[in-house]
Amino acid sequence: MSYYQTLSEKQLKTEISELEDRLAFYRAKNLKLNMARGKPSVEQVASSKELFDVLNSQSDFSDEGVDSLNYGALRGIPSAINFFAQLLEVEPEEVFVGGSSSLILEYDMLCRALIFGVLGEKPQFSNPHRKFLCPAPGYDRHFKIAENLGYELVYIPMTDKGPDMDQVEKAVEDENVKGIWIVPKYSNPSGVSFSDETMRRLVALKPQAKDFRIYCDNAYAVHDLYPESPDKVLALLPLAKEYGNEDLVYLYASTSKMTVPGAGVSAFACSEKNMASQIELMKAHTISYDKVNMLRHVRFFKDIDGVKAHMKKQASFLSPKFDLVDKAFHEGFDGLDIAEWNKPKGGYFVSLYTKEPIAIELVELCKNLGVILTSAGSSYPYGKDPHNSHVRICPSYPSLDELESALEVITCCVKYLSARKAEAVDEH
Amino acid sequence: MSYYQTLSEKQLKTEISELEDRLAFYRAKNLKLNMARGKPSVEQVASSKELFDVLNSQSDFSDEGVDSLNYGALRGIPSAINFFAQLLEVEPEEVFVGGSSSLILEYDMLCRALIFGVLGEKPQFSNPHRKFLCPAPGYDRHFKIAENLGYELVYIPMTDKGPDMDQVEKAVEDENVKGIWIVPKYSNPSGVSFSDETMRRLVALKPQAKDFRIYCDNAYAVHDLYPESPDKVLALLPLAKEYGNEDLVYLYASTSKMTVPGAGVSAFACSEKNMASQIELMKAHTISYDKVNMLRHVRFFKDIDGVKAHMKKQASFLSPKFDLVDKAFHEGFDGLDIAEWNKPKGGYFVSLYTKEPIAIELVELCKNLGVILTSAGSSYPYGKDPHNSHVRICPSYPSLDELESALEVITCCVKYLSARKAEAVDEH
Repeated sequence: MSYYQTLSEKQLKTEISELEDRLAFYRAKNLKLNMARGKPSVEQVASSKELFDVLNSQSDFSDEGVDSLNYGALRGIPSAINFFAQLLEVEPEEVFVGGSSSLILEYDMLCRALIFGVLGEKPQFSNPHRKFLCPAPGYDRHFKIAENLGYELVYIPMTDKGPDMDQVEKAVEDENVKGIWIVPKYSNPSGVSFSDETMRRLVALKPQAKDFRIYCDNAYAVHDLYPESPDKVLALLPLAKEYGNEDLVYLYASTSKMTVPGAGVSAFACSEKNMASQIELMKAHTISYDKVNMLRHVRFFKDIDGVKAHMKKQASFLSPKFDLVDKAFHEGFDGLDIAEWNKPKGGYFVSLYTKEPIAIELVELCKNLGVILTSAGSSYPYGKDPHNSHVRICPSYPSLDELESALEVITCCVKYLSARKAEAVDEH
Repeated sequence: MSYYQTLSEKQLKTEISELEDRLAFYRAKNLKLNMARGKPSVEQVASSKELFDVLNSQSDFSDEGVDSLNYGALRGIPSAINFFAQLLEVEPEEVFVGGSSSLILEYDMLCRALIFGVLGEKPQFSNPHRKFLCPAPGYDRHFKIAENLGYELVYIPMTDKGPDMDQVEKAVEDENVKGIWIVPKYSNPSGVSFSDETMRRLVALKPQAKDFRIYCDNAYAVHDLYPESPDKVLALLPLAKEYGNEDLVYLYASTSKMTVPGAGVSAFACSEKNMASQIELMKAHTISYDKVNMLRHVRFFKDIDGVKAHMKKQASFLSPKFDLVDKAFHEGFDGLDIAEWNKPKGGYFVSLYTKEPIAIELVELCKNLGVILTSAGSSYPYGKDPHNSHVRICPSYPSLDELESALEVITCCVKYLSARKAEAVDEH
């Protein structure tokens, strides 16, 4: 029972009145804070600007015999292939280095499944009942891509160990189910890192559809907030090999949230059999992605130790913000029993769950007070949160001061809406 | 009648014997010359290296209020939009700035026609009889993209004014015909620039299929070999507007052959109605393309005058090579009546047409002598040249000395194969 439900009618009215005063106070401040997306802050991005000192007109642009200044090398320059092989814990032969967006690689690969089919299976377009598993809360753009491409979205609840694997195992018995989206480490937006058991059950799947694939967006592979105690997640492709199931897995990563958002380098990895097929389907329209930007990034990071050092610097911008979210929510909610939230050890998001079904109202109210949050429900298939309780908090972009203001508004709004819910029940 | 056909049997035998000696001489040289693709030379690319001095860690990365170092600005940074608007002679609202490859933009747009349909029409995937018009000789990758995506390729002969418009007008009466590839200026590989009449007839088309589009790859918009006397081609989108037919046109361009091949910036342009639809279909999977590389290019070129000056420098590398091709062919073929060729005023290719149907044999023989040419037939739908007479010559990559050697081999091979043909006729 929430604190507000324990109050007398009179006490509750007083409380609501005080909260309304607070809301009026915030409204008068004319805040303009956007926390809708997982954007690094200006200061954080500035800490990567030396990326643009790495190459100049005097540089040697050759990379292990490949000229990064001319056409060719479809899978990318050798050093970039090796870099992502290390990052994704796969073999170089399993890596394709792309452009500035892993999301586009994901979309492209699903388009190819749709148009050409997967390893000799029929084009998925020809199946009007095609479905995609969406562990939720999850990444809204993943869900929207599958929806746009005509897949029916199947809701799989997320647990604190990853997707509910009982439901996944059951779902893949349907041959119309063609894929699942996962973000195995510091999941967007729940912050969950998948347990070893979840990873093993994923690679052990025996889907009815031969063209079922795990679309694994390892977006936060090295994005630890507390580098001394990172979450550890088993590497998916080597694990799939162990189970003789390596064709089941497509992996994605990018440097967007390592260096410069939207101007980084992306990659995918898959079994050599899948890779041969992908290359065959890409080679007419792809000569290569931007090899100079690959070279710039590899030379900037130097090696995996360079990545670790750089990501530690990134964490120094991010972890105080995540600490502040946790502190503000504790201060705001402790003892009231009106909200829960996670404290992730990496990634870009905190998931706030209200006890009452008030997420839509909460996002609307915050917006009216000048604090833009991600749309309520957007982390669920079709944008519909079955409990109307989840709100994605993106603390990375605002300054600490702005974030503090925004969190005050958010906690006050949760309290107000929860109190109003208690009042409504009273009135019944 | 060719020179060899006028010879007596004995004279011909002597001639063939001399040509065989010549071939043996070339074989002994162990040449290794690759002229298969339209690649700028190492020296030419080096002349653009200052591109990488434009930005460094101290630079201002904002562009008319848009931060090129963070997510957002789906259509690109304002200055890049304006740059391409000038280059393509369209309005800024009609421009979308992409990644390093216009070919990928073209493929993507055709995929969207396939999967989503065009402006409310049915997905083209659902039409198993879908067709695409391929003016040939044309760009092999264009044809292969349409073929891979399941379009039947319809051969349209190229004339010296552009595609045979009588045939195009007739072809679009078929509602299964969904598009045409064109390269209106310095066409790949015939070097033809489309006449005003051709351009007007293109935009005046009234195709049976509402979802028919002109895929216009303006790859060589500013790629004049002789800047003092460039070919002039009417701008397609403004012209289409004049005819009230602006939705018919998709335009593409990139800086790949202006600065660094494969690491440039691409763009497409289309009517505002088409643009709104494209954005709607892209916005889930695209946040933006690499805005830093856009900024780098715009600041490097500064303006259209900067482009002109830079392209003049590029021409200084290319025009001596094209002059050499023309000279070598004149020296080799004049008076023999065994081959024709064009002398383009821009672009990257010369088309050589043998009088006898010997293109496949020619490419094979040259290969055996260490000179790699583009596969015979590759400039035609399904890789099949109906006359087996066209060979694409790409003089841009080799040095002048290498090119001279390669041209000696090519002309000698054409003579030898033509003489053998005359001998075969004699023997009949």
